[in-house]
Amino acid sequence: MYKYLNNINSPDDLKKLNKNQLVDVSKDLRQFLIDSVSVNPGHFGAGLGVVELTVALHYVLNTPYDRIIWDVGHQAYGHKVLTGRKDVFHTNRKYGGISGFPKPEESKYDAFAVGHASTSISAALGMAVSAKQKKESRQIVAIIGDGSLTGGMAFEGLNNAGIQNSDILVILNDNNMAIDPNVGALKDYLINVATSKTYNKLKNNVWDFLGKINKLGPNSQKIAQKIDNALKSIILKQSNLFESLNFRYFGPVDGHDVVQLANTLKRLKTIPGPKLLHIRTVKGKGFESAEKNQTQFHAPGLFDKDTGKIFHNSKEGKPPRFQDVFGETIVELADKDKRIYGITPAMPTGSSLNLMMAKYPERAIDVGIAEQHAVTFSAGLAKEGMIPFCNIYSTFIQRAYDQIIHDIALQKLPVIFCLDRGGLVGEDGETHHGVFDIAYMRSIPNMIVSAPMTVRDLRNLMYTAQLQNKQPFSIRYPRGRGLQAEWKLPFEKIEIGKAVKISDGNDLVVLSFGFVGNDVQKAVIDASNRGFEISHYDMRFVKPIDKDILIYVFENFDTIITVEDGVLQGGFGSAVAEFMIDNNYNSKIIRLGVPDKFISHGTQQELRKECGFDKNSILKTILTNIRNTVSK
Amino acid sequence: MYKYLNNINSPDDLKKLNKNQLVDVSKDLRQFLIDSVSVNPGHFGAGLGVVELTVALHYVLNTPYDRIIWDVGHQAYGHKVLTGRKDVFHTNRKYGGISGFPKPEESKYDAFAVGHASTSISAALGMAVSAKQKKESRQIVAIIGDGSLTGGMAFEGLNNAGIQNSDILVILNDNNMAIDPNVGALKDYLINVATSKTYNKLKNNVWDFLGKINKLGPNSQKIAQKIDNALKSIILKQSNLFESLNFRYFGPVDGHDVVQLANTLKRLKTIPGPKLLHIRTVKGKGFESAEKNQTQFHAPGLFDKDTGKIFHNSKEGKPPRFQDVFGETIVELADKDKRIYGITPAMPTGSSLNLMMAKYPERAIDVGIAEQHAVTFSAGLAKEGMIPFCNIYSTFIQRAYDQIIHDIALQKLPVIFCLDRGGLVGEDGETHHGVFDIAYMRSIPNMIVSAPMTVRDLRNLMYTAQLQNKQPFSIRYPRGRGLQAEWKLPFEKIEIGKAVKISDGNDLVVLSFGFVGNDVQKAVIDASNRGFEISHYDMRFVKPIDKDILIYVFENFDTIITVEDGVLQGGFGSAVAEFMIDNNYNSKIIRLGVPDKFISHGTQQELRKECGFDKNSILKTILTNIRNTVSK
Repeated sequence: MYKYLNNINSPDDLKKLNKNQLVDVSKDLRQFLIDSVSVNPGHFGAGLGVVELTVALHYVLNTPYDRIIWDVGHQAYGHKVLTGRKDVFHTNRKYGGISGFPKPEESKYDAFAVGHASTSISAALGMAVSAKQKKESRQIVAIIGDGSLTGGMAFEGLNNAGIQNSDILVILNDNNMAIDPNVGALKDYLINVATSKTYNKLKNNVWDFLGKINKLGPNSQKIAQKIDNALKSIILKQSNLFESLNFRYFGPVDGHDVVQLANTLKRLKTIPGPKLLHIRTVKGKGFESAEKNQTQFHAPGLFDKDTGKIFHNSKEGKPPRFQDVFGETIVELADKDKRIYGITPAMPTGSSLNLMMAKYPERAIDVGIAEQHAVTFSAGLAKEGMIPFCNIYSTFIQRAYDQIIHDIALQKLPVIFCLDRGGLVGEDGETHHGVFDIAYMRSIPNMIVSAPMTVRDLRNLMYTAQLQNKQPFSIRYPRGRGLQAEWKLPFEKIEIGKAVKISDGNDLVVLSFGFVGNDVQKAVIDASNRGFEISHYDMRFVKPIDKDILIYVFENFDTIITVEDGVLQGGFGSAVAEFMIDNNYNSKIIRLGVPDKFISHGTQQELRKECGFDKNSILKTILTNIRNTVSK
Repeated sequence: MYKYLNNINSPDDLKKLNKNQLVDVSKDLRQFLIDSVSVNPGHFGAGLGVVELTVALHYVLNTPYDRIIWDVGHQAYGHKVLTGRKDVFHTNRKYGGISGFPKPEESKYDAFAVGHASTSISAALGMAVSAKQKKESRQIVAIIGDGSLTGGMAFEGLNNAGIQNSDILVILNDNNMAIDPNVGALKDYLINVATSKTYNKLKNNVWDFLGKINKLGPNSQKIAQKIDNALKSIILKQSNLFESLNFRYFGPVDGHDVVQLANTLKRLKTIPGPKLLHIRTVKGKGFESAEKNQTQFHAPGLFDKDTGKIFHNSKEGKPPRFQDVFGETIVELADKDKRIYGITPAMPTGSSLNLMMAKYPERAIDVGIAEQHAVTFSAGLAKEGMIPFCNIYSTFIQRAYDQIIHDIALQKLPVIFCLDRGGLVGEDGETHHGVFDIAYMRSIPNMIVSAPMTVRDLRNLMYTAQLQNKQPFSIRYPRGRGLQAEWKLPFEKIEIGKAVKISDGNDLVVLSFGFVGNDVQKAVIDASNRGFEISHYDMRFVKPIDKDILIYVFENFDTIITVEDGVLQGGFGSAVAEFMIDNNYNSKIIRLGVPDKFISHGTQQELRKECGFDKNSILKTILTNIRNTVSK
């Protein structure tokens, strides 16, 4: 098993092989990934698609002196395996284990931390400018997918690289996919280039034309042939998008021919200036089910490596995922009102907007990896009276913070933001936690900031938001399942800015915001079993915040615990504290939430425990404070 | 005077004229802008450059039913004049007057609020999709400069528009300038297209080739000529960047030929699908000094409309602007350390980084309007051991919030952020106030968040930040001048996280953050003249915050006033409140700062007063609270 891979513990070992053996190394590496990811869930298809590229890069380049920057980074599993992490690879994405993304503190081979799309060209350019000044002739390579290339930031990087004249190589890993199939004009363009349609079209035109002027002389077809050859290189070059931006364009090349890739990379090492190598790959390459079902096998969870069958846990009777409640609810709302739109930046499956895309393709729009555009596009829709639900993961909408302020809130446009994956997301780790949104959204004037405690609340908040239709309305909800199996009840309008009493008691009060309220509820029940009666309010809105409830709470309780799945600096607890000081109360407030550091990866449960707001931590905080109060 | 313009109070009046009279209208409009802006300072060059376009658009289009979206919007003065705001135009940018940017609440002709660059295509596309559904056949036009086009968001919009097949017209107003000369590969490309170099190059190649094969027959030169004509349209089309993105490309057209523009726009109305019209204009057109000094005349302040002389207030003996302290200090630091870099996204003059660009062009880099790239490019530099000062206006760095978190803070990279125009900026108004940064920066782990009270402090914070070189360090400072004429003193290292005592007293304590501390200082002196002794601390750092001082303050004062030039939700005052509740103190805290609404335009002084933190408001708050305390 892994005849070749067994002996490769670093790129140096790889370099000892002859070029033709790379084919076997690639086979081994692919098999290793299949064996490993089938039992330790993680990202799958993207990694398989770059097996040959990964082998070729580490064979040709002098890593870590040369820099490889993987855009997004979930395709870097093979890179991790080849760079000394084979033996710990089974800890991938596990608490205390290695990260599912490149991480410089984990390995010197990880040149730059990645996770969000479209960053690699900018980072590579910074490194190249630095290398130039230090007179270090290192190779700097950014590998970016065609999906990531739709992010505006990638274009900004290309545009700047084109004039810096730095020696960077951008490898366009073109598999025609983001997580879902890639969209946008650029995609069509890449297919066009890859199949040389542009050139063919031109050639046909020239031939047609020359055919017509045959009368000019007997040699014209012969001339035409010569012209054809002469034009080929000129046309292909001149008509190229990347050449427009001063990049030298190479390709397209078969991304699964490891020997050709190695040869090409070697040749490119000697060519100065900004270069783009266009390679064509297949996402999930070498694993039949993954090639056929690319979106499903992006991150499939556990699967049978022999049959390709994905082991779904039985969904029977289980509560739905929050994302599915979003997906099904927006379809219901869209059934009733033609003004409803759904917008996603390249996350139709992740957000479950694909349900609406199937039923209302005209009104459910995947704009590509383009969060900024997604938000302002929604603004344009709302300005003309439409009701857009703009669904973006909390961590990704950080990309559009300016647009939320400048294009939405300033004009008080009634765009409904559905912030999926709010709070700690688990295994994807530090690049993907959606923990800043409560703080940064509540700073924005005109914005309603809400979070449902339950899937039923999500449904009703969505209903309420589109009824309201007067100002921007944000709804953040977590990754994963809710707790109510029965959720598709008739719509109920929610009073905006009103909290909900979950339990009553005089010993202490807990205020929670969002899904974390369920852990509070459990902790309160546990405390009750020990004889303590705790009041618990699900605040539901951090903006506008329920002043009546806060006044009641501050007038009746000496100790208040706030709980949120978000950063403590400026978050929900701070909003409560602001209210207190603005209104001259002075209770004691204990704030639970994400502390002031980046939280690594693990299960959501493990991470909530680490941050001190899982059920047991909440209970402990409750009990400690009751005792303190009593002992006073 | 204004023979034609006098009779134009709405686009309807314009439409009554015959096409050739548009030339005279344009003359009038240009003269009106010169007469007006020379005495009521505002944006100048951009508006002059689009006089003919503005006239042609309102002549041909059926506004406001048809939508015109001006990217950035500072070029829309002519648009305002033609759409009924001629008589109030003297109030432009004044407190209570009209805005310097399009603003829907001001006029139905302003289709979308703008201010930041690169938003227009996205907004237009949203409107177009909406129009399609409503079966409204309105024209939707986005006018975007070549500078704004470098912003990644514009590319995201183009990429999406290319597949939506909506009827939008993007007018590329190509004047080869942002505020400073435009940069980037795209700029070269546009020049290339405009001068048809691509085509000429190809043609030359073909001719050369055909010349060589003359021996094939006597007719080959003749053939070549025919081929030439046939290729022209094909090549020009196929080699076009915008055609790559499914836009139909028209142009380049002379943007100062109003009749031709009107004809072209009329023709384009009938062509469906996404279209791009490339027009060439001259920034400052028709005013000689403005044409010659385009950067200076972007927003020149008062000037003599006859001589073109700008009336600079004498700088003699005056304290420097904060931006100049940045600009001169970074040069000094760069003199001593080759690792120092300066990065600006298209603001070399506005940030004064142009000083370093003149001396160290290799290490002072204008990356174009591309804030996201600017930040991650800086990350790449820092990752390789360089010390980048990334200078971005507070309001614009909102565009790069994700990159600050994900590419800088997560890796703890020692990038130094210089946030110019922090706080209320004055006449530019609501789109440009830099009021969110304190709140959103302090939420980010690993980030040092500082603000100088004086220009000397700015100098020393910059010095300290590059000495520190261990983690990201943000320094925010205001628009305008400091108060110390003598500032270029020997560098002094500042202790990170330490506050500075400005005055001592037992009646009350005021904590301030940043430049606003000077107004606090004056208010404290006034209070002192009335017999009250006030402690005042310039906190200097909101993160890490000075715990020793806060403990001292909370242990010794019942009433604490916090003052900041930023939003109150989650800002500096909240940080103080968080410290208080986390450490079980319970003083009364009164927070002064920007309330929870968008603040319009006016002088900085007027706006600070409106927000209640100008000197007099601070004094009033101090006196009121001393009286309350005494009367207790």
